[in-house]
Amino acid sequence: MTLTLAEIQAAAARIRPYAHRTPVLTCQSLDARVGAQVFLKCENLQKVGAFKFRGACNAVFSLTAAQAARGVATHSSGNHAQALALAARLRGIPAYIVMPENAPAVKQAAVAGYGGVITLCAPTQAAREATLAQVVAETGAEVVHPYNDERVIAGQGTAALELLADVPDLDVILAPVGGGGLLSGTALATKAYSPRVRVIAGEPAGADDAFRSLAAGQIVPSVAPQTIADGLLTSLGTLTFPIIRQHVEQIVTVSETAIIDAMRFVWERAKLVVEPSGAVPVAVLWEGKIDLRGLRVGVILSGGNVDLDHLPWQL
Amino acid sequence: MTLTLAEIQAAAARIRPYAHRTPVLTCQSLDARVGAQVFLKCENLQKVGAFKFRGACNAVFSLTAAQAARGVATHSSGNHAQALALAARLRGIPAYIVMPENAPAVKQAAVAGYGGVITLCAPTQAAREATLAQVVAETGAEVVHPYNDERVIAGQGTAALELLADVPDLDVILAPVGGGGLLSGTALATKAYSPRVRVIAGEPAGADDAFRSLAAGQIVPSVAPQTIADGLLTSLGTLTFPIIRQHVEQIVTVSETAIIDAMRFVWERAKLVVEPSGAVPVAVLWEGKIDLRGLRVGVILSGGNVDLDHLPWQL
Repeated sequence: MTLTLAEIQAAAARIRPYAHRTPVLTCQSLDARVGAQVFLKCENLQKVGAFKFRGACNAVFSLTAAQAARGVATHSSGNHAQALALAARLRGIPAYIVMPENAPAVKQAAVAGYGGVITLCAPTQAAREATLAQVVAETGAEVVHPYNDERVIAGQGTAALELLADVPDLDVILAPVGGGGLLSGTALATKAYSPRVRVIAGEPAGADDAFRSLAAGQIVPSVAPQTIADGLLTSLGTLTFPIIRQHVEQIVTVSETAIIDAMRFVWERAKLVVEPSGAVPVAVLWEGKIDLRGLRVGVILSGGNVDLDHLPWQL
Repeated sequence: MTLTLAEIQAAAARIRPYAHRTPVLTCQSLDARVGAQVFLKCENLQKVGAFKFRGACNAVFSLTAAQAARGVATHSSGNHAQALALAARLRGIPAYIVMPENAPAVKQAAVAGYGGVITLCAPTQAAREATLAQVVAETGAEVVHPYNDERVIAGQGTAALELLADVPDLDVILAPVGGGGLLSGTALATKAYSPRVRVIAGEPAGADDAFRSLAAGQIVPSVAPQTIADGLLTSLGTLTFPIIRQHVEQIVTVSETAIIDAMRFVWERAKLVVEPSGAVPVAVLWEGKIDLRGLRVGVILSGGNVDLDHLPWQL
């Protein structure tokens, strides 16, 4: 299957009863600082605090009754785990979540709070995959990958569809890139719905594998990434890379300083709790590597899950 | 003049080109915690980060051309000063702001950033009033009191009008009370527009002069208030007290612990930056002094101006 606008529109209809249609907010002091009209698509206000709920929800509600009865499974220590657990609970089916045993207690508690069935494993990629395979063998659950899954990509694309419908005449949409689920969904939706709108990604300079992948023309794995934007550590996937290569104009790398400053600015002036990964596209506006002055810029604020006891400007 | 729904509706039309129609957001984990359906009216997302912009804007745009030409004036070290400065700038007239010389530099800078003309004075109520009188004598500016002004009360009431229009079948609206501008406007709007909706206020136990005023049947001044909710330190006014006495069902006092806990919960789970004063009505839900379980509860999150370097759960 090749993903098209039709699948993203179907996803939008499928998740509508469950997901928030998040607001698009503006902030005069942000506009004044960057010299553009900025429209913040507030996925930090989405269920579970991140866009991840869209993709997980679309995947879960795409299952046939027979598939659904066996549940869903994934390995994740982040927002996808919570998103899949909540989506599964809403459908009334089990979610089996494999988490590394060193995952923070607060994240384990959040997944459990949404009804997820947690299996802990050693904190290695091999252990995560082996444990997930074992869980699937025992349960017959459907694996829902955090980004390399067309149902997930289609779900993530629904945020851009809403943004494009709510804000006419956008010139650019900025999104962060980690594994590329949000970015590929955003790019597909945007180019199909409104081809003249440019799609540009932000990526931490300390985790610039997507930037290097575009330059190399093939997936360059993320090795030892160093960034506060802990949602953007992973490599691109075999499904997300070709979409990004085709539809994304540019990936702009941003410094840690710019990420932290952008995050604080959004908290202070826009009054929105955004996580470092979600501040990355705002940091693109800070860096000045591309000239967006005078343009109408949509920004996907991807998530707002942070530890309030450890804020980066207080480290 | 006696304030009626007509004045509040006129205020709504007057400020519409300038103020945000702030979103009403919901948060499942908040609902789950308090056992009610809670609708957050996000005045922290209003211009200058607080509902205060509504009243200031209504006052400024109510002036005749001749009045407006001489500008507006007030003494304030808080959100009202910024709100009045911005409203005046939008009308292209001067705003003279008297501030105590010990007002934080960041607040002075914010007022100056909105184009306010600052006159510093000694940090006493007498000095503030004398300095304001002098400024008015020199300029002929119109004084806009932060709350004891019908134009301001009518403007603050527009937030409740929007909330009532956006959320059908509310049972209760909760608002914080300091000088009573927001509460009296909210109560007037609510009782005129939808009389069956109950209006209940939250007030810090350490600044409970409004609670005591209702009990005494007359204004009890606020003396040496002690609370983190620094927007709620003032006494009720001669205009706000009678409206509150007539239309507000109850004032619920809340502890400092409840305020801080409610504030943190809103940041962590609703992803909204709310200041302590804005968390006070959420703290009413925490305290359990009144039974709101099973009800549809509107909460006015009054503002989001905080110092991110000094968060109360880190003191």
